Amino acid sequence: MRFKFPLLAIGLEVGMIVLFASFVQYEMHQDTHQRSNSTTAPDVDRFIELYPLFQDVHVMIFVGFGFLMTFLKKYGFSSVGINLLIAALGLQWGTLVQGILHSLGQKIHIGIKNMINADFSTATVLISFGAVLGKISPVQMLIMTIIEITIFAGNEHLVAEVFKASDIGASMTIHAFGAYFGLAVAGVLYRPGLRRGHDNEESVYHSDLFAMIGTLFLWIFWPSFNSAIADAGEKQYKAVVNTYFSLAACVLTAYAFSSLMGHRGKLDMVHIQNATLAGGVAVGTCADMEIHPCIAMIIGSVAGMVSVIGFKFLTPIFATKLRIQDTCGVHNLHGLPGVIGGLTGIVAVALGASDRSTPAMQAAALGSSIGTAAVGGLVTGLILKIPIWGQPSDENCYDDSVFWEVPRWREHGNHFHEHSGHNQLEPDL
Amino acid sequence: MRFKFPLLAIGLEVGMIVLFASFVQYEMHQDTHQRSNSTTAPDVDRFIELYPLFQDVHVMIFVGFGFLMTFLKKYGFSSVGINLLIAALGLQWGTLVQGILHSLGQKIHIGIKNMINADFSTATVLISFGAVLGKISPVQMLIMTIIEITIFAGNEHLVAEVFKASDIGASMTIHAFGAYFGLAVAGVLYRPGLRRGHDNEESVYHSDLFAMIGTLFLWIFWPSFNSAIADAGEKQYKAVVNTYFSLAACVLTAYAFSSLMGHRGKLDMVHIQNATLAGGVAVGTCADMEIHPCIAMIIGSVAGMVSVIGFKFLTPIFATKLRIQDTCGVHNLHGLPGVIGGLTGIVAVALGASDRSTPAMQAAALGSSIGTAAVGGLVTGLILKIPIWGQPSDENCYDDSVFWEVPRWREHGNHFHEHSGHNQLEPDL
Amino acid sequence: MRFKFPLLAIGLEVGMIVLFASFVQYEMHQDTHQRSNSTTAPDVDRFIELYPLFQDVHVMIFVGFGFLMTFLKKYGFSSVGINLLIAALGLQWGTLVQGILHSLGQKIHIGIKNMINADFSTATVLISFGAVLGKISPVQMLIMTIIEITIFAGNEHLVAEVFKASDIGASMTIHAFGAYFGLAVAGVLYRPGLRRGHDNEESVYHSDLFAMIGTLFLWIFWPSFNSAIADAGEKQYKAVVNTYFSLAACVLTAYAFSSLMGHRGKLDMVHIQNATLAGGVAVGTCADMEIHPCIAMIIGSVAGMVSVIGFKFLTPIFATKLRIQDTCGVHNLHGLPGVIGGLTGIVAVALGASDRSTPAMQAAALGSSIGTAAVGGLVTGLILKIPIWGQPSDENCYDDSVFWEVPRWREHGNHFHEHSGHNQLEPDL
Repeated sequence: MRFKFPLLAIGLEVGMIVLFASFVQYEMHQDTHQRSNSTTAPDVDRFIELYPLFQDVHVMIFVGFGFLMTFLKKYGFSSVGINLLIAALGLQWGTLVQGILHSLGQKIHIGIKNMINADFSTATVLISFGAVLGKISPVQMLIMTIIEITIFAGNEHLVAEVFKASDIGASMTIHAFGAYFGLAVAGVLYRPGLRRGHDNEESVYHSDLFAMIGTLFLWIFWPSFNSAIADAGEKQYKAVVNTYFSLAACVLTAYAFSSLMGHRGKLDMVHIQNATLAGGVAVGTCADMEIHPCIAMIIGSVAGMVSVIGFKFLTPIFATKLRIQDTCGVHNLHGLPGVIGGLTGIVAVALGASDRSTPAMQAAALGSSIGTAAVGGLVTGLILKIPIWGQPSDENCYDDSVFWEVPRWREHGNHFHEHSGHNQLEPDL
Repeated sequence: MRFKFPLLAIGLEVGMIVLFASFVQYEMHQDTHQRSNSTTAPDVDRFIELYPLFQDVHVMIFVGFGFLMTFLKKYGFSSVGINLLIAALGLQWGTLVQGILHSLGQKIHIGIKNMINADFSTATVLISFGAVLGKISPVQMLIMTIIEITIFAGNEHLVAEVFKASDIGASMTIHAFGAYFGLAVAGVLYRPGLRRGHDNEESVYHSDLFAMIGTLFLWIFWPSFNSAIADAGEKQYKAVVNTYFSLAACVLTAYAFSSLMGHRGKLDMVHIQNATLAGGVAVGTCADMEIHPCIAMIIGSVAGMVSVIGFKFLTPIFATKLRIQDTCGVHNLHGLPGVIGGLTGIVAVALGASDRSTPAMQAAALGSSIGTAAVGGLVTGLILKIPIWGQPSDENCYDDSVFWEVPRWREHGNHFHEHSGHNQLEPDL
Repeated sequence: MRFKFPLLAIGLEVGMIVLFASFVQYEMHQDTHQRSNSTTAPDVDRFIELYPLFQDVHVMIFVGFGFLMTFLKKYGFSSVGINLLIAALGLQWGTLVQGILHSLGQKIHIGIKNMINADFSTATVLISFGAVLGKISPVQMLIMTIIEITIFAGNEHLVAEVFKASDIGASMTIHAFGAYFGLAVAGVLYRPGLRRGHDNEESVYHSDLFAMIGTLFLWIFWPSFNSAIADAGEKQYKAVVNTYFSLAACVLTAYAFSSLMGHRGKLDMVHIQNATLAGGVAVGTCADMEIHPCIAMIIGSVAGMVSVIGFKFLTPIFATKLRIQDTCGVHNLHGLPGVIGGLTGIVAVALGASDRSTPAMQAAALGSSIGTAAVGGLVTGLILKIPIWGQPSDENCYDDSVFWEVPRWREHGNHFHEHSGHNQLEPDL
């Protein structure tokens, strides 16, 4: 950590600047004199029109994902801090690789959709981050960010340009991809020493409330996520409405199944923080299609239910049988609901909800997203396993104090223990 | 709780889906080709134009109301969690009842204003939730949500369509209604055992900070709440400006009176969290009218002052003399300022600030809102009093651990007490 | 505190209302019938178009600045609470002084840009607040708000109308001004008794997480801050894009240098909370100019690096040698990066990135901003030093309980200590 991390971070940033200097340009068409001529160039005005949706997505990436992962009692700094770090790196790298793939040889012209897509590409890494949370180092996360976004952009290009499949809310290309990529990495980095759990792998009361900040901003702005790059007008409108009602329905079934499967009917914060969002993931692929709001609600209801069942039964099986330790349960929030999204997309297209794609192409997109993610994750995992990246030891997992100066936990009132300074204190003394 | 809650939640969601299938349709006019023709259909573009205001209101409902109620030391999970649950149910049910009342026999076409109004209808329940916070079960809240939104929609229809009264920011139909409905329920569910208070009915330092997240997002986005469904252009602009300045003025008087009435001039977090918002409530009815910004500031100043006085003197009287235990003091934040809003609306209309309504109709709207709320709340309270809904015992009030798996409170450093697991721990051992 | 604070607050609000009645009017051009005629009055629609950017700035002011300062373990109520108070006063006063300077003798017509500028003017005070956080009373802050915004508006008028300098994101007029004003006040109010630090001047684990809420919302919405009042179209677009990439680059260097300078390579929350934002400040002056995104990234990278170095080396020197105790390190977040912004603005104009200004005028603007701030801050500091404003004693610094009713810190589980009530408890017993 001493020099590897800072030198790698500086090196990456210098690289980004050089690549931006070589490949990136401003978009040229943002002229004010065109504003008054609304019949000829309707897309010109879309920068300021889409900017609020971009900002909603931006909040999801940095506050939503960041705080969602603060549920662990001693890993809040890393959750929200490394989230910021890899998203800031990822959006620069995502701008480049997506832009190069899209403009092939020409300059990349930065418009509002590039910025939204750059944020999207970071979401993939942040989802995978959830699977390995607490078990890997900042250096490993920087490496994973670069590799995963590259593979993501390749698969996304394949899905959108070659298969020409529909996936407006990216159930397949972001959520399923990010989840299975992360699970593959977690599988390669399996830690037998943690198979009975870890003292730090639990929440405290207020860390669960911090996590709810993340949950709520994700939940609120998910309609923007699913509609931000949709076609103006009817499709964008449908993507908002379908996501809004899918999420609302999802909340009801997530609460119901959390209680149904809980000890004496009690609700579990893990389910509430995560499964309530599954409806946004699952409706993603067909959000902008001519399904009916009630179908969106059915999709959301099923996703909420499946997600809770996944947390209850699949996560333990993954950890013990498949030797995949999925810290945040991303399989239940992004993996399964992403697959549901892909499958409902196939059915919706087969039933004529969209004339842009075919069921076969939708199936190819789903298969490609999962397959690419799994292979990419395995390879990435092997690279990250090389023992030079500062991976924490088993006993130091889920503990900020390995990478952060950590203050004492709180003022104890008359239990206050005087210490000599700020930096010497670590929470797990 | 064991089965009643999950079965009721699932049953309600199934019912919503069936009703949506029967009554709801997409709006048909969101065509892109109409976008270029701005003279004939100016409202077509309003989806994307109003979407940011909708999202502001959405943040208020889920983050604003949710975190505002996390001030209790052991009731944060329920505050933010049940808030999410009932808002998700309420927005579905609100879409239906408001739509059915409005379109009478025809299909409900979901546009951005339906979504804003659906969010609004949940606000009513969330306000009432504040009066009974900590004392009722999730099952009771689901029932209350269905009943209250039905009555709310009836009253709102009466006020807007029959009386044709002005109430753009819903001081009467949401705030006064929600407050008096909740107070009536709280009165029926009066708990003599809590007349001397309860150990759990207090904040801790960080719970008060969580509550400030709610306060600030409500404060910031209140201009959107009061203007979201206003007429495009001048009226919407006025609603924003008047609310902005009313809230700013309100902060000054709320702080001044909190200090004036405090012990040795000290400020009280309860006042800051709540009374600073009273200006948004009180200016609601006449926010879009031709009052002057300085009148908006006077309204806000008075509301901030009255709200603090209410917390100081009325809440204790309510609890002891009227036998109404108002956990969050919704009477001071929504009740009194809502009445101030209704009264200033009568005066403003009488003085010619709007030509859409008459003072008599404004007075009828205020009376109808309070009267319907009081009667509706009493009836609802009697239904909720039936002892089969899992209402917590007096000693279990204001305690998450009745309905939630609760982790230990925090890591103690070297005071750490080892326990055998996560679920067995409850904060009040 | 007993009567001075409430009477001053009420008096100020009464004064605001009287001044608003005398000087302020609604804008007259917000007519709906003009909406269809987009060729003649393109600015008419800008209210609803700029409203989302206004709300982003609004979130930065109240949530961003408010929570950023909650990092101190016992000063969260004051940080977020006094932030709200002075911002609410400041936006009223800012509306007046900026409007009077701009409309000279005529009525002030409130449009969306007035509201954005009013929020901006409060930012100046909130930055200065960071330098004196924990050491001055609410009465002193009210006085400082009035004086500082007056001087700020004068300097801003000079820079924009006399020098006609470019400073779209206000690196000079807000950030450098606010920082050096605050430092000058802090210098005059130097407390020798605190030269060895104070037990309260440190964070606890969760207070650092609360502060990250502020950091993230500032980071996310900074592109709105730097573009909100830019010319529609190309310039506004450039301001967003340049700020977006400057901030992303800044994160990488801030993390790298935090680790590089940390004990055993560990990251420091103080740097992450603050230095990650320096890129937004530093790119402010030339954000809307024809620089290249890669130049924005270089500016951001340098700012992140310089800011961390400032925290590490300059803040201790300021405290010991210059006798300026800068609680939040505003010199490193706003001062230095603001100067970087001003200097890059001179260079950018010299290189032809903008034809609106000259290098000499840019230099005059930078000098004027720093000079006016320093002199204004010294004078304000002398006024605040008069010992009648309730300034806390050295031992009561950084402690909410001087001005607030403070609850116990948390529930202790079986460590619970029964106390007789809420108000008698203070965290530092």
